[in-house]
Amino acid sequence: MNDGTKALARLAQLAKLGAYEAGIDRPLASPQERAARDLFAGWARAAGFGLRQDSVGNVYVRRDGTQPGLEPILTGSHLDTVKTGGAYDGAYGVVGGICALELLEARGVKTKHPIEAVAWVGEEGSRFPLGCLGSSVFAGIKSAEDVLAIVADDGVSLRDALASSDGGLLPGVPMRGDRGVAAYLELHVEQGPILEEAGVSLGVVTAIFGQRRLRATVTGVSGHAGTVPMRLRADALCAASELVLALDRAARTQTDAVATVGRMLVEPNGTNVVPGSVTFSLDLRAPDDASLDVIERAFHDAVADVSARRGVTVEVEAFERRKPTPMTPALQAAIHRVAVAMGQKAIDCPSGAGHDAMSLGTIVPTAMIFVPSIGGRSHVAEERTADADLELGVEALAAALVEVDATLGAKGRG
Amino acid sequence: MNDGTKALARLAQLAKLGAYEAGIDRPLASPQERAARDLFAGWARAAGFGLRQDSVGNVYVRRDGTQPGLEPILTGSHLDTVKTGGAYDGAYGVVGGICALELLEARGVKTKHPIEAVAWVGEEGSRFPLGCLGSSVFAGIKSAEDVLAIVADDGVSLRDALASSDGGLLPGVPMRGDRGVAAYLELHVEQGPILEEAGVSLGVVTAIFGQRRLRATVTGVSGHAGTVPMRLRADALCAASELVLALDRAARTQTDAVATVGRMLVEPNGTNVVPGSVTFSLDLRAPDDASLDVIERAFHDAVADVSARRGVTVEVEAFERRKPTPMTPALQAAIHRVAVAMGQKAIDCPSGAGHDAMSLGTIVPTAMIFVPSIGGRSHVAEERTADADLELGVEALAAALVEVDATLGAKGRG
Repeated sequence: MNDGTKALARLAQLAKLGAYEAGIDRPLASPQERAARDLFAGWARAAGFGLRQDSVGNVYVRRDGTQPGLEPILTGSHLDTVKTGGAYDGAYGVVGGICALELLEARGVKTKHPIEAVAWVGEEGSRFPLGCLGSSVFAGIKSAEDVLAIVADDGVSLRDALASSDGGLLPGVPMRGDRGVAAYLELHVEQGPILEEAGVSLGVVTAIFGQRRLRATVTGVSGHAGTVPMRLRADALCAASELVLALDRAARTQTDAVATVGRMLVEPNGTNVVPGSVTFSLDLRAPDDASLDVIERAFHDAVADVSARRGVTVEVEAFERRKPTPMTPALQAAIHRVAVAMGQKAIDCPSGAGHDAMSLGTIVPTAMIFVPSIGGRSHVAEERTADADLELGVEALAAALVEVDATLGAKGRG
Repeated sequence: MNDGTKALARLAQLAKLGAYEAGIDRPLASPQERAARDLFAGWARAAGFGLRQDSVGNVYVRRDGTQPGLEPILTGSHLDTVKTGGAYDGAYGVVGGICALELLEARGVKTKHPIEAVAWVGEEGSRFPLGCLGSSVFAGIKSAEDVLAIVADDGVSLRDALASSDGGLLPGVPMRGDRGVAAYLELHVEQGPILEEAGVSLGVVTAIFGQRRLRATVTGVSGHAGTVPMRLRADALCAASELVLALDRAARTQTDAVATVGRMLVEPNGTNVVPGSVTFSLDLRAPDDASLDVIERAFHDAVADVSARRGVTVEVEAFERRKPTPMTPALQAAIHRVAVAMGQKAIDCPSGAGHDAMSLGTIVPTAMIFVPSIGGRSHVAEERTADADLELGVEALAAALVEVDATLGAKGRG
């Protein structure tokens, strides 16, 4: 088994944990997610690397560096999944991390910094609400106390779940007492169609999109579909349709931005009744806050216009605002140099999905490497990446870790 | 209790059957709709009138005429409601019919023709698809066999529903074997704003709008709301929104025409998922077929345009095409004479809503009397008609039945 096929075999092992007909279900601190952490720890022990965990369950696998006193470069992702997850989202970055360490070991490549492959817990927000739990604690965004107090949909606190024998912390693995880190690299499947469309195997992430989530409720006047003349109508669905299209137009004016009305409920939803009210969700994402501002303002302008023209009222509730996370330019450049050295074309691309790199990006130089998702599909059982791309991504990560190790040495924190 | 307040009391009794916070839900062959038929039959028995039903559940209450061999004049409406129905749509014509018979009886007014108050089943198309089921069978437009074979959304056939003990035919009520009828008069609330706007209490219907019902299914490509760029999307909800607005614009170009998208279902309907498919209903109504043609053509043009531009496919299924139904001029004139005799102003008006009079209008002289709907509202819990107007309508119906009885005697089929 070479190191590429080793990564594929490990992903296949992980894919069995939590597998059912609709995909993979591996929520934080479940027996199947604990089994995934066990597997990761087993690979580390077999390779002779250092192994530690922390109080919220993050697992760290360490290969030492040559220069004493340097903080480690971390690389990793998460082992939990959404309810109908695929085999690669998260798992690929964890497997890729330890495979990269083994690659360096097998080739006798020394690095000045220690390098740690890490499995962050609870990235998806499945079972326990809120995502990126483990990496948020590591980055100091949230306290371990606060995160351990979070209660799952099933009524169990994370503290109790991590104390249980079937879903809890790994027995016999020592604690990582400090939160030292010099830089962070995350390998991930793209989960979108950009790389496939461009015909390239490597993406260098420029920024993780900021996200705003809102809900709009349009209230008009319900009535009989046959008897209310058009001139006297306040049709909530016609008004909502105008707003959906206004949002679509606004998103298209901003580079790389996306906006989606994914969910819509019509009341009373009868074939012969003029809709009296419509509620719909808005999901806005963009690489910069200015773009999000433009889109949100355009939507509010449309609300004012449509309300006046159609005689409806529109209530807009904003319930999530996440700032964009730019990736570190020096680390992006290092990945591009690696791609050139490998004879591979790499393109810049944004990340529309959230990742643990959002947490690490708040404290140290951070970058991400993407490999293509077939058909751009993710968070579904059919999530796939070509074997050759998976193998290539691990090689690129190993080389990028070495390049970043050198960059940090030359330029401090990049 | 005089006969006017008797009608109000009976409407209040019926309004309790199927009542919930959002209105009245009394679908065909449900326990609550069966209870309404039971109530109607009870009033007939108490008044000593003849009582019969037919195989699809229509209930007939008969007051005999003086001249042997004449077919009966029928008057009535329906007892079923839409899902969020009001207290008057349908129920008023049924209550008005039997109250008119009692009025004639109490005043010792004889008619040559028998007069039957009838409760038609399944006018609204709620639970079982397709409307005017009972009157269509009576008029020979549909066979009883075909109608009994219709399957409801809940998987039950009308045949089975009418054989059940809680929603079925009335026990012990004999069958009306024939379909004899000389003329038809229907008393109904307007369900629109025309009479209220004109400040009159009686409307004489000139024609019932033609109606076309269609269903459109837009199929795009579902995807992650964060990772699929706008330019690569085939968002089914954006496409559907354009079609909703195209229909709205087309209807506004035609005099008196209306068009409504009342029902819409989005799949998968998740806040962070680009909609993959949207299904919606179309309801087109106009006093003439030419207007309906223009609107339908404009919608199909929009489908072609939107499909090409947004990369979606749109399947349009037309499942009901109903021609406009003109009311019989001689019967309209009879109602106008009655209004003059009562010292009431009556105006001509079209009916945007469908009624059982559409079925009867295909076989015998047919007319309708409207009373005003407050705010023009109908098919909602707030559906209201002033008590004085309700009482006036019953008096007008009783007088019109006598006038039509005389008219038919003088002029045959009017």
